Amino acid sequence: MSTMSNTQHNTAVAINQDNIFPHGSSISRTMRNRRVGHKSCVIWLTGLSGAGKSTISSLVEQELFDQGYLITVLDGDTMRAGLNADLDFSKKSRQENLRRAGEVASLFANTGHIVLATFISPYQEGREYVRDIIGTNFHLVHVEAKLDDCIERDPKGLYKKALSGGIENFTGVGQGYEPPSDADLIINTSKQDILSSKHELIRFIERVSSLKV
Amino acid sequence: MSTMSNTQHNTAVAINQDNIFPHGSSISRTMRNRRVGHKSCVIWLTGLSGAGKSTISSLVEQELFDQGYLITVLDGDTMRAGLNADLDFSKKSRQENLRRAGEVASLFANTGHIVLATFISPYQEGREYVRDIIGTNFHLVHVEAKLDDCIERDPKGLYKKALSGGIENFTGVGQGYEPPSDADLIINTSKQDILSSKHELIRFIERVSSLKV
Repeated sequence: MSTMSNTQHNTAVAINQDNIFPHGSSISRTMRNRRVGHKSCVIWLTGLSGAGKSTISSLVEQELFDQGYLITVLDGDTMRAGLNADLDFSKKSRQENLRRAGEVASLFANTGHIVLATFISPYQEGREYVRDIIGTNFHLVHVEAKLDDCIERDPKGLYKKALSGGIENFTGVGQGYEPPSDADLIINTSKQDILSSKHELIRFIERVSSLKV
Repeated sequence: MSTMSNTQHNTAVAINQDNIFPHGSSISRTMRNRRVGHKSCVIWLTGLSGAGKSTISSLVEQELFDQGYLITVLDGDTMRAGLNADLDFSKKSRQENLRRAGEVASLFANTGHIVLATFISPYQEGREYVRDIIGTNFHLVHVEAKLDDCIERDPKGLYKKALSGGIENFTGVGQGYEPPSDADLIINTSKQDILSSKHELIRFIERVSSLKV
């Protein structure tokens, strides 16, 4: 890949890398961006379960794909069922979950994709860690919603389960959510409907992915 | 992503997934393939260090990118410096290295890429494990070369180091390499030059990635 991720920031890793010779792709990120006509980037969507991260991402992916964008959703749950299926929800595993998500998002961005990464990512520290891994063209989007609204929507039935004691440390119930102080965009789904939210994110992406900027 | 990887085959994972709701991308693999005009797939290149896996992949990536293919190299060393930087070379870690590589290759193939995955992957068991994770459109290519030729080429200086005792368990020196019995293509770089090898792989990819088949 054209840009190596900054593994020096990954305090979790301490393997001797003397015999490792990573080499860049023969096709640079810039060449790939020129091919598709837009900059690649990572749009990191943080927010409570039920805030609308996946719904908005899916609608945006659909619309921008139709317009010719190279775009993909990297979904927290999908990754937990595949690449991160070996990880539980302990603090250490949550950090590793984010580290891998950041590395994979980087790989996709380096090959020209706009990546919509939907991860609750409740802590400032975790989000900063990911921002650090990804580096170039990382944009933090806070999909904000009142906890009461999320509990009412409860698309996965998880709040109900958590409130009746069935899930330990569920964000918003047993565990807190730290709203980001460094969001590049805030989309409030308690104040506007999902279509307005979609349009807001599309306008943002059009701006940050323009090759003219 | 359109196809979930088969985590049920990952014996290493045993996490409770009751509260995980992976959901498909709104854009299917087929739609993505139609967009770029070719099938996505994983071309898994196995072979000794120095056999030519990376060199051939890089040349093929360049040529097919120029022809408009959506193609990317997933390099073993590059992954070891990023996503897999927490893994050592123990048997368990080697398996985890392959598991993650397989999952990431799947993600890329599901988003329309032809993935050239260059991993020594010395054991039949490990390659079958990866084939199992990736499933659809996995093609095993054995980049074959005489060990003596690899030692002579020694592009990374690793054979020299291993032969003088500086690397434990280096494939071909302290550790064996099991030639695959199930390769879909064998490219022998002891018998032909790198350009012929490149053309051989390109012809193979044109065939397996054709939307007409």
